[in-house]
Amino acid sequence: MIQPFWLYISYTFPMALASPAPLMRVNGERLMQRLMDLATISPIPGGGSSRLALTDEDAAGRDLVVGWMKELGLEVTIDVVGNVVGTWNVGHGSPVMTGSHIDTVRTGGKYDGNLGVLAGLEVIQSMQENNHQPSRPIAVAFFTNEEGARFAPDMFGSLVYVGGLSVEEALDTVTIDGARVADELERVGYNGSTPCPGFAPSSFIELHIEQGPVLEQVGVQIGAVTGVQGISWQEVTIEGQSNHAGTTPMSMRHDPAFVAASLAVFLRQLSQRFSGHQVCTVGKIDLFPNLINVVPAKAVVTLDVRNTDEQLLAQAESEIADYIKKIELSEGVTITTRPLARFEPVEFDEDVISLVESIAMEHGHTVQRMPSGAGHDAQMLARVCPSAMIFVPSVLGISHNPAEHTSTQDITNGTNILLQAMLSLAEKKDN
Amino acid sequence: MIQPFWLYISYTFPMALASPAPLMRVNGERLMQRLMDLATISPIPGGGSSRLALTDEDAAGRDLVVGWMKELGLEVTIDVVGNVVGTWNVGHGSPVMTGSHIDTVRTGGKYDGNLGVLAGLEVIQSMQENNHQPSRPIAVAFFTNEEGARFAPDMFGSLVYVGGLSVEEALDTVTIDGARVADELERVGYNGSTPCPGFAPSSFIELHIEQGPVLEQVGVQIGAVTGVQGISWQEVTIEGQSNHAGTTPMSMRHDPAFVAASLAVFLRQLSQRFSGHQVCTVGKIDLFPNLINVVPAKAVVTLDVRNTDEQLLAQAESEIADYIKKIELSEGVTITTRPLARFEPVEFDEDVISLVESIAMEHGHTVQRMPSGAGHDAQMLARVCPSAMIFVPSVLGISHNPAEHTSTQDITNGTNILLQAMLSLAEKKDN
Repeated sequence: MIQPFWLYISYTFPMALASPAPLMRVNGERLMQRLMDLATISPIPGGGSSRLALTDEDAAGRDLVVGWMKELGLEVTIDVVGNVVGTWNVGHGSPVMTGSHIDTVRTGGKYDGNLGVLAGLEVIQSMQENNHQPSRPIAVAFFTNEEGARFAPDMFGSLVYVGGLSVEEALDTVTIDGARVADELERVGYNGSTPCPGFAPSSFIELHIEQGPVLEQVGVQIGAVTGVQGISWQEVTIEGQSNHAGTTPMSMRHDPAFVAASLAVFLRQLSQRFSGHQVCTVGKIDLFPNLINVVPAKAVVTLDVRNTDEQLLAQAESEIADYIKKIELSEGVTITTRPLARFEPVEFDEDVISLVESIAMEHGHTVQRMPSGAGHDAQMLARVCPSAMIFVPSVLGISHNPAEHTSTQDITNGTNILLQAMLSLAEKKDN
Repeated sequence: MIQPFWLYISYTFPMALASPAPLMRVNGERLMQRLMDLATISPIPGGGSSRLALTDEDAAGRDLVVGWMKELGLEVTIDVVGNVVGTWNVGHGSPVMTGSHIDTVRTGGKYDGNLGVLAGLEVIQSMQENNHQPSRPIAVAFFTNEEGARFAPDMFGSLVYVGGLSVEEALDTVTIDGARVADELERVGYNGSTPCPGFAPSSFIELHIEQGPVLEQVGVQIGAVTGVQGISWQEVTIEGQSNHAGTTPMSMRHDPAFVAASLAVFLRQLSQRFSGHQVCTVGKIDLFPNLINVVPAKAVVTLDVRNTDEQLLAQAESEIADYIKKIELSEGVTITTRPLARFEPVEFDEDVISLVESIAMEHGHTVQRMPSGAGHDAQMLARVCPSAMIFVPSVLGISHNPAEHTSTQDITNGTNILLQAMLSLAEKKDN
């Protein structure tokens, strides 16, 4: 399913790099230290952190990172939904931006999001130490509530930043603990005055851990991220006839558990037929009453279907709908479906993807083009400027878990590529 | 799957019936009134009752039924595990016994168990009103904790009655609410002195609602129960690799939810291949963490497999074990199984089955031989004397639910057949 990386070799030559960029290197140890320092804020057993968006813990993380931004002489702006942008005001024109998020899920790791923000600081510090003045300003952002773990939607801050959600609606959002986002922003002191939508960067590039197993398993060091998979989520409720498991002949059953199971098997077969980047998951099954000797009255299952190709994703949805109609009839059950989320695939900018790929190869790293299976802030920024992402390997693909890990070497590699890419993008003229 | 009843017509002539038995009839209205009266003890919304074994509610039900036994002049004995036997001491030799249970599940109906006990009282009262003196004593029993809803095993009282579980072990049993059975017996005043195992009746016959949909669906009034299905229960735990539903390619997954679903589909296919009286149910599925966008780390499912034929049941178990080994390898998961219950099928006595069948036909009722899919006290009594059961239809097969219903006509029919069968059995000489 994953093609070997050399099939993806790009023959696009990298854009001219400003001297002395080829020799410039980040300080991986310093970056790791900042990652560890940030992880000490609201630590959880096993080594991760728990900093849900706009909680006191998130505020403490924000304060720490804003402090680092100021130490580097960045101009720090806070916008009306709490997005923070630190800008090194050098050169002219619209900045090259990097960044990600520092909020976490309840059981967050050390790297998800944090890496993209702190690598941005490391890139600027490395340029400064090398007395390199880029032709454009360099900005590092962290966006509010990327995880969506305290309030919906995920990628909340970057969505508002690019104008995809109105400020009014965003501020009126209510968290899972019943608070209003506007009040929480004020409470933690991140109700800034910079308006949204924010300025459009000249380009955006985000370094992130893969959060999947592909790079590690195929032994490739760098992912040149081509876009983000489209997502189709639905909840399927199957109502049948609850019966005694002993006294009801098979021919008289209308068994929602069997239908739920058949649907899960159908999704697996569909993903095999489609192959490519098609993934399907049934991660949640609830049976009622969920007893060993009772044919359930009801089953509720969720279907998570993703593809990088919108046409294939729509076709998968259509085939699933057909299957549901068919099995509803054959099993004598009633099935209702409820859409939970639907996002079309996002394609990143070919020039920025090629740049990442060619820099990685120049630096002697193995690199592979790949889609992202998870959502990221870069997919929102892609609406307003040429954007792409750099992935580094996640050990065992584990994420959203204290066991999330990426080696210092991989983090350093990824950050060096971010540095070189930003050096290059900062020299790019406006079209 | 269910053969038409005329294929089952028995050419065995009924045993000689004592005059004036052919004309004797029960009073269906009186029986229905007792059923309704018993149902007023710990009633629940929808019309059923909640009388878990050896609770205050069960004690109140016991007191009511014991009062009725005494009104009929029965000698009431209470044994060391609370089984109650009311005996009409007429004739000589060991009694013909009928009975069932009056404990219920938490959401019990009006008929499950109660019918078999109160029909026994109605049979005796009808004989008495007709001045009929049977040649053997007639006994009506209710056994402790048939349901197993408050403590294990089910059919607890009848199992101890026939010596299948020691009194010591029985008394030391702890309920789901942490009480000891011996203490609960004493608390509710049903710690009797009659020893267990109890006397072996000359025969045992139990009237019960079907608790399944077969009789109603095929339009047959009486089931001549041939035995009780063997039961194989196991819990299957599947451990895989929890992963992000977006970032993990299908080829790299070790998905316990998919394995659980495949197992449920395999069980359905197995029951279709075996056909006959093979039933298979996956009624309980628990996924961990059970989230839409996470390939689960673990799934726990239960398998309920039943057959009337021990050899086929063992073959089903063996095929399931083979399938588990195969899918464990192909999906790269770890599967462990835990046996939860295993009972061999029980065969009732051919003479008593034939007797039920022929009486039903003589009375102009449609009748069908059928196995019981649920466990009943009669299967325990079958260890010590010729035993069988009479089934009457359950509307929609619903049981263990306040909506449990059987028509007055069907109840009256079944009780008349019980009466005639007991009249006949009471005239049977010892071999």
